Amino acid sequence: MECIPGVTDLKRVRDIIAPYIHKTPVHSSRALDTICGCSLFFKCEQFQKVGAFKFRGATHAVMTLDKKEALKGVATHSSGNHAQALALAARNRGITAHIVMPQNAPKVKVEAVVSYGGIITFCQPTLPDREATLQKVRKQTGAVEIHPYNDYRIIAGQASAAAEFYDDVPDLDCLIAPVGGGGLLSGSILSTKYFSKHTKVYGAEPDQANDAWQSFKQKKLIPVEKALTIADGLRTSLGSLTFPIIADGAEDILCVQEATIIRAMMLIWERMKLIVEPSAAVPLAAVLEHPAVFAGKRAGIILSGGNVDLMNLPWLDPQHFGKH
Amino acid sequence: MECIPGVTDLKRVRDIIAPYIHKTPVHSSRALDTICGCSLFFKCEQFQKVGAFKFRGATHAVMTLDKKEALKGVATHSSGNHAQALALAARNRGITAHIVMPQNAPKVKVEAVVSYGGIITFCQPTLPDREATLQKVRKQTGAVEIHPYNDYRIIAGQASAAAEFYDDVPDLDCLIAPVGGGGLLSGSILSTKYFSKHTKVYGAEPDQANDAWQSFKQKKLIPVEKALTIADGLRTSLGSLTFPIIADGAEDILCVQEATIIRAMMLIWERMKLIVEPSAAVPLAAVLEHPAVFAGKRAGIILSGGNVDLMNLPWLDPQHFGKH
Repeated sequence: MECIPGVTDLKRVRDIIAPYIHKTPVHSSRALDTICGCSLFFKCEQFQKVGAFKFRGATHAVMTLDKKEALKGVATHSSGNHAQALALAARNRGITAHIVMPQNAPKVKVEAVVSYGGIITFCQPTLPDREATLQKVRKQTGAVEIHPYNDYRIIAGQASAAAEFYDDVPDLDCLIAPVGGGGLLSGSILSTKYFSKHTKVYGAEPDQANDAWQSFKQKKLIPVEKALTIADGLRTSLGSLTFPIIADGAEDILCVQEATIIRAMMLIWERMKLIVEPSAAVPLAAVLEHPAVFAGKRAGIILSGGNVDLMNLPWLDPQHFGKH
Repeated sequence: MECIPGVTDLKRVRDIIAPYIHKTPVHSSRALDTICGCSLFFKCEQFQKVGAFKFRGATHAVMTLDKKEALKGVATHSSGNHAQALALAARNRGITAHIVMPQNAPKVKVEAVVSYGGIITFCQPTLPDREATLQKVRKQTGAVEIHPYNDYRIIAGQASAAAEFYDDVPDLDCLIAPVGGGGLLSGSILSTKYFSKHTKVYGAEPDQANDAWQSFKQKKLIPVEKALTIADGLRTSLGSLTFPIIADGAEDILCVQEATIIRAMMLIWERMKLIVEPSAAVPLAAVLEHPAVFAGKRAGIILSGGNVDLMNLPWLDPQHFGKH
């Protein structure tokens, strides 16, 4: 894909990935509606394969490689869900996934990549070393790089989550997606443009990693410097392909505090009995911090993933105690 | 209901409770199927209102009271999900629920009863004091006692979970329900008898509260003496109404160790992204401890509830550390 995916692309993507992905359910909660003063619908991508929406984009990218490219495998650097997603997508096509991961990646995510057959190369936890290591791996193997978000094949794959959402809940006033690199948000914007024109799309972002907000407000790409948020999936910066789509199509980017992310995560666990990772709780945190924006509205939230380390829950971490 | 519910009763129950309950979804997990060597289907009663199947029986009992009885309200003693269930069912009918709870009941369960409008009377955490306090409350108020399980209206209500399950997954070789007082298990046996005759029904019970197993094997009701299991919903003993149905209709009662309950609970949380309470993990623990019984079979598991205290998770409790 050489340019921004159009309506035909987005429809074709759904056919391509359908045999591999789960069509995830939508949940709601009267208790949360009461707390928030609006009607909330939650698209449960934590029930997606590998436990996150990332499997959509990775599957689309891997399944559309031509045969010759595919033979040499795929490669990426990721400490998170994209790593697992690419490993499983590659296994589904019968090719190798080379994953560059920082040495300090959560154990649960390392084990998951291994369980999906991914070949891991560890590196220093710095962006320069991640990129250098990835280039080394690519040189050695000839594998095709699949970037976690700055790739139209990935964006088009992630777009399928919002498209499915609109199938199930056709009259949403707004849709809120978390924003890290912007793959899910930009994909959601494209699906909204073609399948639910009247819906306003919001990005939800931690204060501690507010590059999308800064970029959106200043109308130029401003990378994040230091992202200390517990929402580990959202520590990355927008890319050159995701930013223009977001700048053009997002209604707004809403920023939230760390304590609100933890509170939102606990609400989803306690009230909805759904396991979500901190990043997935950021849109609900946005509703809690910006109630006026959503008052009385029908708002869709994409719960982006559920991969958490059950031994290290944020509300049990002394670092966060007393802050929520 | 004066005698064991028949097929007409069970069908009528579903109509009576339909406006109030959630029809809960069935989930499955390829990862767990691989681990267990069978095909597992999980009926998600943690997504039921109040977070547990108990709302089915309580709703049926409350909605079938005659007007005059209902006016004085309902009463029960319960430290668990039945308390919340009865409180919400009563609120739905516009009557009062009087709930006798031990002083040491988990805070999260006390708060839930209050949030559903239940009137709490605290008592000592002993069965004699619970019963004495309940009789005092009944005398003062004239409220009708709704026992958590030893009541055919409750049994018939709980039966609806298995009946729905068979609607969605019609060809189960076996069904596994946790067993405490036996309301869910006896109800499941009745639904199986009428709606899925060829399915074998198993009870799953903690070793630490194995009164159902003892009673089943010795063919007489043997109450539990000391139930120290973390599966707090299963600490009670079978009742005079649930025991005969179980003795007659269960294929077997399978006992499990505490460490296996914790392991099963973690597997459901990590692999399925579902929040379940320890009691709800006991059937999967039975599959893990008795793999030969289920090898190659299609087995249905009722995930009975999801009310846990997120600040006190069993795998983070030093008391349980190193045991799993």
